[in-house]
Amino acid sequence: MQILAEIQTTAHELAKHQKSISVAEFFSKNRHLLGFDNPRKALLTTVKEAVDNSLDACEEARILPEISIEIIDMGGDRFRLIIEDNGPGIVKKQVPNIFAKLLYGSKFHSLKMSRGQQGIGISASVMYGQLTTGRPAKVTSKIHKDKPAYYCELVLDTQTNEPDIKNEKNIDWYRDHGTKIEIDLEAIYQRGQQSVETYLKETAIVNPHATIIYTDPKANQIIFPRVTDELPAETKEIKPHPYGLELGLLIKMFERTTAKTIQQFLMDEFSRVTTSVAKEILEKAAIPPKTSPSVLTRESAEKLIKAIKKTKIMNPPTDCVTPVGAELLERGIKKEINAEFYTSATRPPSVYRGNPFIIEAALAYGGELPKDKQAKIMRFANRVPLLYQQGACITTKSIAATNFKSYGLNQPRGSLPVGPCVILVHIASVWVPFTSESKEAIAHYEEIEKEVKLAVQECGRQLGKYLSKKQRLNTELKKRSYIEKYIPHVSKALKLLIDLTDDQQENVNEILKDLLEETRGKIKDIKHTNTEYDADFAKIGAEEPEDDNEEEDE
Amino acid sequence: MQILAEIQTTAHELAKHQKSISVAEFFSKNRHLLGFDNPRKALLTTVKEAVDNSLDACEEARILPEISIEIIDMGGDRFRLIIEDNGPGIVKKQVPNIFAKLLYGSKFHSLKMSRGQQGIGISASVMYGQLTTGRPAKVTSKIHKDKPAYYCELVLDTQTNEPDIKNEKNIDWYRDHGTKIEIDLEAIYQRGQQSVETYLKETAIVNPHATIIYTDPKANQIIFPRVTDELPAETKEIKPHPYGLELGLLIKMFERTTAKTIQQFLMDEFSRVTTSVAKEILEKAAIPPKTSPSVLTRESAEKLIKAIKKTKIMNPPTDCVTPVGAELLERGIKKEINAEFYTSATRPPSVYRGNPFIIEAALAYGGELPKDKQAKIMRFANRVPLLYQQGACITTKSIAATNFKSYGLNQPRGSLPVGPCVILVHIASVWVPFTSESKEAIAHYEEIEKEVKLAVQECGRQLGKYLSKKQRLNTELKKRSYIEKYIPHVSKALKLLIDLTDDQQENVNEILKDLLEETRGKIKDIKHTNTEYDADFAKIGAEEPEDDNEEEDE
Repeated sequence: MQILAEIQTTAHELAKHQKSISVAEFFSKNRHLLGFDNPRKALLTTVKEAVDNSLDACEEARILPEISIEIIDMGGDRFRLIIEDNGPGIVKKQVPNIFAKLLYGSKFHSLKMSRGQQGIGISASVMYGQLTTGRPAKVTSKIHKDKPAYYCELVLDTQTNEPDIKNEKNIDWYRDHGTKIEIDLEAIYQRGQQSVETYLKETAIVNPHATIIYTDPKANQIIFPRVTDELPAETKEIKPHPYGLELGLLIKMFERTTAKTIQQFLMDEFSRVTTSVAKEILEKAAIPPKTSPSVLTRESAEKLIKAIKKTKIMNPPTDCVTPVGAELLERGIKKEINAEFYTSATRPPSVYRGNPFIIEAALAYGGELPKDKQAKIMRFANRVPLLYQQGACITTKSIAATNFKSYGLNQPRGSLPVGPCVILVHIASVWVPFTSESKEAIAHYEEIEKEVKLAVQECGRQLGKYLSKKQRLNTELKKRSYIEKYIPHVSKALKLLIDLTDDQQENVNEILKDLLEETRGKIKDIKHTNTEYDADFAKIGAEEPEDDNEEEDE
Repeated sequence: MQILAEIQTTAHELAKHQKSISVAEFFSKNRHLLGFDNPRKALLTTVKEAVDNSLDACEEARILPEISIEIIDMGGDRFRLIIEDNGPGIVKKQVPNIFAKLLYGSKFHSLKMSRGQQGIGISASVMYGQLTTGRPAKVTSKIHKDKPAYYCELVLDTQTNEPDIKNEKNIDWYRDHGTKIEIDLEAIYQRGQQSVETYLKETAIVNPHATIIYTDPKANQIIFPRVTDELPAETKEIKPHPYGLELGLLIKMFERTTAKTIQQFLMDEFSRVTTSVAKEILEKAAIPPKTSPSVLTRESAEKLIKAIKKTKIMNPPTDCVTPVGAELLERGIKKEINAEFYTSATRPPSVYRGNPFIIEAALAYGGELPKDKQAKIMRFANRVPLLYQQGACITTKSIAATNFKSYGLNQPRGSLPVGPCVILVHIASVWVPFTSESKEAIAHYEEIEKEVKLAVQECGRQLGKYLSKKQRLNTELKKRSYIEKYIPHVSKALKLLIDLTDDQQENVNEILKDLLEETRGKIKDIKHTNTEYDADFAKIGAEEPEDDNEEEDE
């Protein structure tokens, strides 16, 4: 019996330590999941969460965004971040939840393209600020010019994941409407690749309708003015597509739905299910259309899912995701990068796990880009630049898996291509699957991988055409230069042999040149066989023919 | 007033959609965060979560683990996973929480080295199973031979994150104690790099005290028998180290502590704070040692943290993290990889954010490893192999940032080295910072990056020594072979000139060879200048001298 007591103790002893974990405690201990791995990244993450929210709010309210970001150096590794927008504002009751409660927001339960989606970001920033400096966040929000602004100071209680309002009042504020948040946090300010500057610059590229005013810790002000007064097309919320449906979810939906018949259920709850599609599915599943969803069993649900997979259903509507657009993307990359060749591609919408998405890619080559380095990758998701975790991103994997050798670039096996090249990829989706809550990399869904590859290949093929054309032209120019080199010698010899005048000699030169063009074609024509690359080839044509061999002649 | 109504509507309209998100809904929608990106990975993740739990439970109860894993193909992309262990079992009351409630466990609130830490893994697997197949998980657990086993079927309610017990009873079970879990899930079974086999094989390497019995879907059984009866040293729970302390946490600790004085508080709540250390900190912070923590302000907390940073405090105790050990690691890698050179290094314990950790590395070179590929990286965290997200892992980044050219390997700028090389890295810590809940990659903490680099450099230097030695030896052997080639010719010429007998000629050969050894040293001695590499160089010595030049001679 002593053994009994002892062994019981083992399981019972272990049981004593088994308990619930608060979600705020979880993320506070795992703060790197939220993008707070280190003080430098913490600064960027906080700016990013606030700016993303501001852009989303403005677009939802159809207001042209004007966002100001100010970073103030408080000394001793402390910074104050002030982010202010001209958005619709937030109603008083929701302010504490939005800014100081994890997993609270408007976008999680809907399928709609937006920057935020999880209801974590800005509250996590508030939590990080309070953990590192002990100070509450200060929020000001105004929803109409005839109403006062609401001001409060907020702390997140990590044990309960509830907001704790430290101080609240109505105040005067110069704006008609908008939101301002002030967060003190421990951080490191540093310029360069993964900095606030880079993030804002790239944000401006893919959000040309926003004006962004940035004041850095040295009080330098940078303004990214809007270049268009047109807001991106309003994105619509969609219902889930039947192709992504899973058994467990379907069973739960049977319980929750208000639809009286299974046919109505299918048509109400999913996108692209018309009467005839619903009938086809139900026929294949051998379920009478008038059956009430509430009486359906797990077996019926299985049959239904099998039937859905066998039924041809239209892809989800495309107006729920708005790409940046190939043209704008190319313009963006041109503004950013000084290259000699640009191309871009926008794929048709596709679906992963029932969620529509669109992949766009752009590529810049040559010019001032470094020749001996890995291609630079620029990644965007729903118009937000992704600056961290490149190695973890499906876009990186897809690019590495694309054969760039066939497009004329070097590429070590399984790696990114090497050469003077920038590759930009944008995913627009009603639900972007990130690899972590910090939303830095896209998760590995096969459908996404495939689309990225196709988009990148499209750009790659254009690059390949350009490079082989460039090569052909160079070869032709080189050959021609060899022949052209002989023309004066021939005419000179003729002059000596048959006593030509200078004019006659010049004439012979012309004739021989014409002859050359007759046999090898006009330079102009060669350059114009592919009209797309006019500008670039005009540049090449203007260059002197290569002179490697002239040196040998001397 | 119409405008007022309208603009109010914008903020109010938005407010309608702002609501709480259940943690289970969150992870169900973001299941890739938990390692369920695709059906193939889902299978591995589920096996991994169950096996990790079994190993942890056995070790905690000081039982030599015996774990069986069975995968049964149910047809139509469905598999049944049955994982059974001889662990201490789980008390009835806790079974539903452990297996069907996210964020519930024993390890989150403690600082102790273990495989599980978040209280998410196995419940996430149960949730994935029910979402894809609609079936509950079946758990059997027995805590003593004189008691019946407890059996139940579990579903996780995603809206409440609470377990829902579908069926429970006491049953007979042949074991004295242990736990068995059965999960049906949609999955893809595939052998190869990131498969269940690889995971179990690598698990066996770093857990030589465990017996693992694996039955694959084709009913093949693979047994990895234990090779030692010695359990890893028992790991101890530690208190946080003062160096990782943050302001927000400290303020909260002031509120919660039962210590009456601030000096007692420091000594009770932290590791490595002795009376004299506590006094030194408080003197530097200008806080009287007898002050009650409850009266301390945010300003005092700030002073305290500054004082802690200025005080020299011993590193955290090292007995809370047990490395695999350089020797075992090298043995493990030798068993796995057929190479010509092996080395390993275990770093002394270090600290990130107050958490002690140890980095170990091992390196294998040459032999049958492919010459033109990137070095293979094998990653482990607390004895668990990490098979996904290599690109996102700090170990990969650290290895890429190490200059392998100086150790004699090729390395494209910013990439992993290229060559016949395998690099293994193990992090052991009381709290491993993963980049996501699926625990596939280590987050980017500077302290960890530094330690990985140092460990890898240590291995790199050994490799460098070996390679330059190998090179020197090859050069010497080549030179010697040139000279040796002339010896017979010289003796033959002498024979003809001065009419030597065959014996005399042989003698001349010997004398000349002795002369050669006198001037250039004995082959044996050259090989022995670095005794560490005896075995390897003996192999080289046994080879014929290189014969590139013989061909020229012919």
